[in-house]
Amino acid sequence: MDIPVSRNAAKVTYAVRNIARRAKELEKQGRKLIYLNIGDPGKYDFPTPRHMLDACSAALYGNRNYYAFSSGIDEAREAIARSARKKGIARVGSENVVITTGVSEGVDILLQTLLNPGESILAPVPNYPLYQAVAMKIGASVAPYPLREDDGWQPDTDELRRSITETTRAILLINPNNPTGGVAGRKTVQQVVDIAGEHGIPVISDEIYDQLLYDGTAHVPTASLTKDVPVFTFNGLSKNYLAPGWRAGWIIESNIEPSSACASTVNNLLDARLCSPTPPQFAIKAALEGPQEHLAQTVAKMQERARITFERLNAITGISCVKPRAAFYAFPRIASTKYKDDKQWVLDLMEREGVVVVHGSGFGQQQGTMHFRVAFLPQPDILHEAYDRLERFMQTAR
Amino acid sequence: MDIPVSRNAAKVTYAVRNIARRAKELEKQGRKLIYLNIGDPGKYDFPTPRHMLDACSAALYGNRNYYAFSSGIDEAREAIARSARKKGIARVGSENVVITTGVSEGVDILLQTLLNPGESILAPVPNYPLYQAVAMKIGASVAPYPLREDDGWQPDTDELRRSITETTRAILLINPNNPTGGVAGRKTVQQVVDIAGEHGIPVISDEIYDQLLYDGTAHVPTASLTKDVPVFTFNGLSKNYLAPGWRAGWIIESNIEPSSACASTVNNLLDARLCSPTPPQFAIKAALEGPQEHLAQTVAKMQERARITFERLNAITGISCVKPRAAFYAFPRIASTKYKDDKQWVLDLMEREGVVVVHGSGFGQQQGTMHFRVAFLPQPDILHEAYDRLERFMQTAR
Repeated sequence: MDIPVSRNAAKVTYAVRNIARRAKELEKQGRKLIYLNIGDPGKYDFPTPRHMLDACSAALYGNRNYYAFSSGIDEAREAIARSARKKGIARVGSENVVITTGVSEGVDILLQTLLNPGESILAPVPNYPLYQAVAMKIGASVAPYPLREDDGWQPDTDELRRSITETTRAILLINPNNPTGGVAGRKTVQQVVDIAGEHGIPVISDEIYDQLLYDGTAHVPTASLTKDVPVFTFNGLSKNYLAPGWRAGWIIESNIEPSSACASTVNNLLDARLCSPTPPQFAIKAALEGPQEHLAQTVAKMQERARITFERLNAITGISCVKPRAAFYAFPRIASTKYKDDKQWVLDLMEREGVVVVHGSGFGQQQGTMHFRVAFLPQPDILHEAYDRLERFMQTAR
Repeated sequence: MDIPVSRNAAKVTYAVRNIARRAKELEKQGRKLIYLNIGDPGKYDFPTPRHMLDACSAALYGNRNYYAFSSGIDEAREAIARSARKKGIARVGSENVVITTGVSEGVDILLQTLLNPGESILAPVPNYPLYQAVAMKIGASVAPYPLREDDGWQPDTDELRRSITETTRAILLINPNNPTGGVAGRKTVQQVVDIAGEHGIPVISDEIYDQLLYDGTAHVPTASLTKDVPVFTFNGLSKNYLAPGWRAGWIIESNIEPSSACASTVNNLLDARLCSPTPPQFAIKAALEGPQEHLAQTVAKMQERARITFERLNAITGISCVKPRAAFYAFPRIASTKYKDDKQWVLDLMEREGVVVVHGSGFGQQQGTMHFRVAFLPQPDILHEAYDRLERFMQTAR
C-alpha cells in the first residue's frame, strides 16, 4: 500500500543531513572520512562542563524525571532572564522566557505561531536550513536578503529594506551567523531593528553562538537595542555550553506582553507537546551562573582552528575564504571552471578524498556562486590533513 | 505592537494544561489542591528504575552528549525492534524504528507527514487532545468515531466504518485508551485493521500504556494482527518505564518500506530538528532488556488505586464509572440537573473542594453527556480524601 505524503511535508529537505547520510553509506563500505560537516562540538575535544553534568545527574537521581511545566521550570527561566539582563536585554523577567527542546523546537513553534500559509519571513542568505524546512511545512516561505561576502558577510540592510512585502511577518537575523561565521555590527543590528519597527513586524534573533567570538569580536544582542520593537531571541546550551544532545534551548520574548495573543499561542503550542526534557533544565542555572572557565578554553581552541582554516584555505588556488569571526564555521568560495554545481563538487570531494563538507546551496546560497561550509571542530592535525586533501582535490577540480 | 497570530495556530488549545494553569493560580493564592489531572507518574511514588538512571548517567559522564543520529541511536532502535518482535510484531528491524522526543513529537511529525490541509484522521471520542491540536496546526481535522461507554469504552467499529470519507488519511486507535482506561479486544482491533486495509489507509496505534494492565486484561498490539496493512505504533519510556520527563518516545513503522516516500518524509522531518535528546536514548536498551521488577510493582499499586477509584466513584450519587482496565485513568460520567457544562462543573469542584480533574469535553467528548477524567496516581489515603470531597461536592452539584 502506498501512503500519500502531505505536499508541504514532501518539500522539506535538509542538506546537512543528506550529506551525512551519503557519508554513512561510504563508511559502511569501509571508507575513513574526515567530517567537517556537522556543527557538533560534542563529537570533538569539547566536553560538557563537569558541573553541568553534575546538575543534570542530580536531577536524575533526585527523582526529577517528571514532566516539567510546559514553558519550563521556574529556576531555569529566572536564570535565563538574569543572564539576558546582564547582556543588556532590559526588562526581561522569567515570564518572558520559554524553554524549548533545543532552538530547533523554538523555531518550529515560533514560525507556526507567526506564519499563515502563503506568508513569509525575511531571512539572510546563506542561512541555517531549518528555517526553510519549517516554513515549507507550514506552506509558508523564506524570502531572502543577502549577506555581503565582500563585507565580511554583513547583512545588506538596503536590500533587506527593499525586500519587505505585505506578506512579510518577521525579519530573521542569525548573529553570529551559521554558515558564514560572520558577526553583524552594532550599526547593522540597529538598522535591522529600525526597519522592523517601521514596518510593524518583529525580529527573530538567533544568537545561539553569541559567546564563541574570535580575535576580539564583539556581539550585540538585538533585543538590547530596542525598548519597543518585539524581538524573539533564541539561545540554549547546545553551543556556548557544549551540551548539544541535551536539547535545552529557549526563547526570550522582548517587548511582547505575556498575555498577548502571540505569547499565549506560543504557550498553547508548548502545552500540547507537554514539556522540554526535564533533567537538563536543572543544569541551565548551573551553566549560566556556575564556573565559565570552559568558555575561554573553548574560544582559545576554536580561534586557533579558525585561523588554520582561514590560512590554509586561502592558500589553495581556486578557494577564497572570509575570516570567521565567531561560531565554528567558515563558508569558503570555490572558483572552478570544471564545476557548475556545488553539491556535485562536495560529493566528488567526499568520494575522492574522504573529506565531508556541505554545499553552499544547501544553505540557500544563490546559484551563480559556489560555496561550501566547513565546521572546523576537529583538532589541528586533522584539520591540516583535511586541507592537504582539499588542496590535492582542487588541483583537478578547479 | 500587536503581532498577528497564524489562524491555524490560534485554534490550538489543550484542556489538560488549561486546567493546570488555573490550578497554579489558586495555589499561588495559598490553596492546597489535590491533583488528579495530570498523567505524570514521576510526580508520585513511581520512581524511574535505578538501572535506567544509571544508564542515562553513564551516557552523561561518558561524554555522549553529542547530537544523536536524527532517527535515533542504533543500539536503542535495535532494542526497540527486538522488543516489538517479542510482542508479536513480526518483521520489524531497526530500520523500521525512529526515536522521537516523546510520543508528542512522533504525533506531530507523523500527522505533518500524512495530512494536507483539509484532510483528516479518524479518531476515537473521547481521545487524547494532542491529536486535535496537531491537526488544527496543519489546517487538517480530527473526525470522530465513538467509544461505547456501555461496552467498556470499546471502539464502535460499525460507526467507524461509516465515518470514513475520501479525506480520511488514517485511523487512530489509542489502546489502552487515554482518557477512559479502556482496552480494545482482539476482535475489535482486527476489525479496525481490516477496515483500514479495505480503504487503503494506515492505522496509527498509540500503545504508550500497553504494559499497565489490570485484573488480567490482555493487550493485543495492532501491528501483530496484519502482514500488509501499514501500522504506525507509538510507544516510549514515559509511562511503562516511568521516565516521562526524559521525552524518549518512538514510532514503529510496520508494513512500510524504509525507502517509501512516507518513511523518507518522516526522516526528513526528523533531520530538520537534529535529534531527540541523546543521553536518555542510551537508557532505552537498559529499560527494555534490563530488570522488569518495577512493572509488577507499578501495576500492583495502580490496580489498587483503580479499584478504589471505581468503588468510591460508583458509590457517589450522580456519578457512574466504567472500571478502568489499563493506564491510570478513569472517565466517570456526571448526572446533574444543575450543570449543563462539564468544564464549569470541573472549575467549581476545584474552587470549592480543591480537587483538580479535567472535563470530558477537553478530550472531545460530545455535548449531551458530561464526563471528567481522573488520573488516579496519588496514594490511597489521598485518593480517599479526594473522593470524600467529591462526594461532598456532589451533594449540591447534581
